[in-house]
Amino acid sequence: MSRYLNPRYAAFEVYTPGEQPRDMQYVKLNTNESPYPAAPGVAEAVAREAGGDGAGGRLQLYSDPECAELRDALAARYGVKRENVYVSNGSDDILNFAFMAFAGNGVRAFFPDISYGFYKVFAELNGVEYTQVPLKPDFRLDPADYMGLNGFIAIANPNAPTGLAISRKDVEYILKWNPDRVVLIDEAYVDFGAESCLPLVREYDNLLVVQTFSKSRSMAGARLGFAIAQKTLIDDLNRIKYSTNPYNVNRMTLAAGVAALQNDAWNTENCRRIIETRGRAKQALEALGFEVLPSSANFLFARSDRIGGGELYRALKQRGVLVRHFEAPRIADYNRITVGTPEQMDVLLAKIKEILGA
Amino acid sequence: MSRYLNPRYAAFEVYTPGEQPRDMQYVKLNTNESPYPAAPGVAEAVAREAGGDGAGGRLQLYSDPECAELRDALAARYGVKRENVYVSNGSDDILNFAFMAFAGNGVRAFFPDISYGFYKVFAELNGVEYTQVPLKPDFRLDPADYMGLNGFIAIANPNAPTGLAISRKDVEYILKWNPDRVVLIDEAYVDFGAESCLPLVREYDNLLVVQTFSKSRSMAGARLGFAIAQKTLIDDLNRIKYSTNPYNVNRMTLAAGVAALQNDAWNTENCRRIIETRGRAKQALEALGFEVLPSSANFLFARSDRIGGGELYRALKQRGVLVRHFEAPRIADYNRITVGTPEQMDVLLAKIKEILGA
Repeated sequence: MSRYLNPRYAAFEVYTPGEQPRDMQYVKLNTNESPYPAAPGVAEAVAREAGGDGAGGRLQLYSDPECAELRDALAARYGVKRENVYVSNGSDDILNFAFMAFAGNGVRAFFPDISYGFYKVFAELNGVEYTQVPLKPDFRLDPADYMGLNGFIAIANPNAPTGLAISRKDVEYILKWNPDRVVLIDEAYVDFGAESCLPLVREYDNLLVVQTFSKSRSMAGARLGFAIAQKTLIDDLNRIKYSTNPYNVNRMTLAAGVAALQNDAWNTENCRRIIETRGRAKQALEALGFEVLPSSANFLFARSDRIGGGELYRALKQRGVLVRHFEAPRIADYNRITVGTPEQMDVLLAKIKEILGA
Repeated sequence: MSRYLNPRYAAFEVYTPGEQPRDMQYVKLNTNESPYPAAPGVAEAVAREAGGDGAGGRLQLYSDPECAELRDALAARYGVKRENVYVSNGSDDILNFAFMAFAGNGVRAFFPDISYGFYKVFAELNGVEYTQVPLKPDFRLDPADYMGLNGFIAIANPNAPTGLAISRKDVEYILKWNPDRVVLIDEAYVDFGAESCLPLVREYDNLLVVQTFSKSRSMAGARLGFAIAQKTLIDDLNRIKYSTNPYNVNRMTLAAGVAALQNDAWNTENCRRIIETRGRAKQALEALGFEVLPSSANFLFARSDRIGGGELYRALKQRGVLVRHFEAPRIADYNRITVGTPEQMDVLLAKIKEILGA
């Protein structure tokens, strides 16, 4: 830190992304990326935009700050209007904007104690007072804990790193009990089996649904997130966007997003394969004595009485398999394991057997 | 605006990007884009990253949050170390982060009254008190006006929309007179003929130099900005980045940036052509009676006694030529005209002659 840094930004702990070590080739099951490539047509659309098709490209021109074509494609896909869709440089940007726009200035933020680590960072970054609402001992979220909080609420559904989902009815209960504040439902992993609350957008003007192309559409490296809500909330997000970075989504990513939606059956099929692999991997882990939470996401959250979470993480890393371990006391016994290809999961299981001497 | 919006973000005027009308095909001289395509190799690098070369691509994997390869390429290009380089999703992101990190909390921001419109927006967005320091009547910046201000200082050099530059010696004077605060020099247009203050980075730990690939490297649509400074300031920017959006630069843009630097002679040659065209266009406008400020950027700032700024802007737009007009009283007589190809400038001049009946 320099001696010039505003003390407001000096105190808190920043977010730690999953490690990307380069000392060897790992089976990478630590950052919830898709093991499958982006949809056919994405690469060609990107190449066309950049001029890689030999026809010139358009990189010298600013991208469309309205992101009109992509928003129209998303609107068509989800049965809403362009005015209901906001797109951004990854969904983290939307989460941050939402903490800026809908919390602070006397409005407290509420989110589960075990959830996406960035909620706490966004609250602290924006000087927002917050409460981490404890999940039940079995990591389930009880909607009753969110009754009449009169604050900004952020809930990942399915939750990370647990993988547990709540129902649309539960979300509606929370919306009804907090009519004067925004409820953000972070559906980054929703395509892997949870119930989306998008159908509630029409009825609730305080619902902000956030999704991403990173996981179920195999585009983590392209950076593309989106939000769907009633026009007034989308207008608020645009207000922050036009005060920070109007051209926040580049031309190549916009083109990739449109192409991914044109071939969305590819993505749906990949989700189906991941769900299938997840089921088999869960059973195999359970057969090895692991306790595995029922997951609606593209990862498993698992612990064993036979080996500590940190110990297993380190032993796997030594053997070339990366999983994600968190130090937070409630979950230190667990590891979050991304569901990769069946072959990757076989390697994982073989290494675990080796470690356990099973 | 929704009834949920934090009032802090409700009051101020957001930035207005240059218009991108779609009603007809315009000669677009309003947003300072390059008329030339990105360097050879950029399109291929992007296609390779996305898989458009038939070899698979890597879009499903997160981009490197360290941006190591691109930072190394920039470090080599500018004779610094990786630790001195920060890259971001367009340079606006860096400007915003700098207002967050180095102003506010009792530190006032200072910038010229006529300059990049976003400085004021960033100040207001971040709740930073600010002073717009008046340029001289001829729009020149007098370094003496920045003597001992004891605040965060942001100066575009060359300035926009005037195109006027200050010398490195002037920048050094300002640095010396404000040793306890950060001085940000926004060199978005520096490659078109101004003196960069990069050589001062080694000596001044309060200097933050910001540049972009948008203009001189023909990559406005790829969104890539960078900053060069001593390690401590770069660490501060990274702190904000890791609290907002760690993967803020996508894989395709990272690849494009590296390729653009591998072929930087292409960009230098394009800058040379634009400088040449700028000289001829300036003479031609002066021959038509325009007063044209001496420009060190890829645009001209011009006024005529024979027609008002707004009137000329509208008449040109009607005739298919877009230039940028600002309503601010001191510059309402002027238009900012991007330097395009010689052919585009010929169209501009012909239309102006037509409008003036010359």
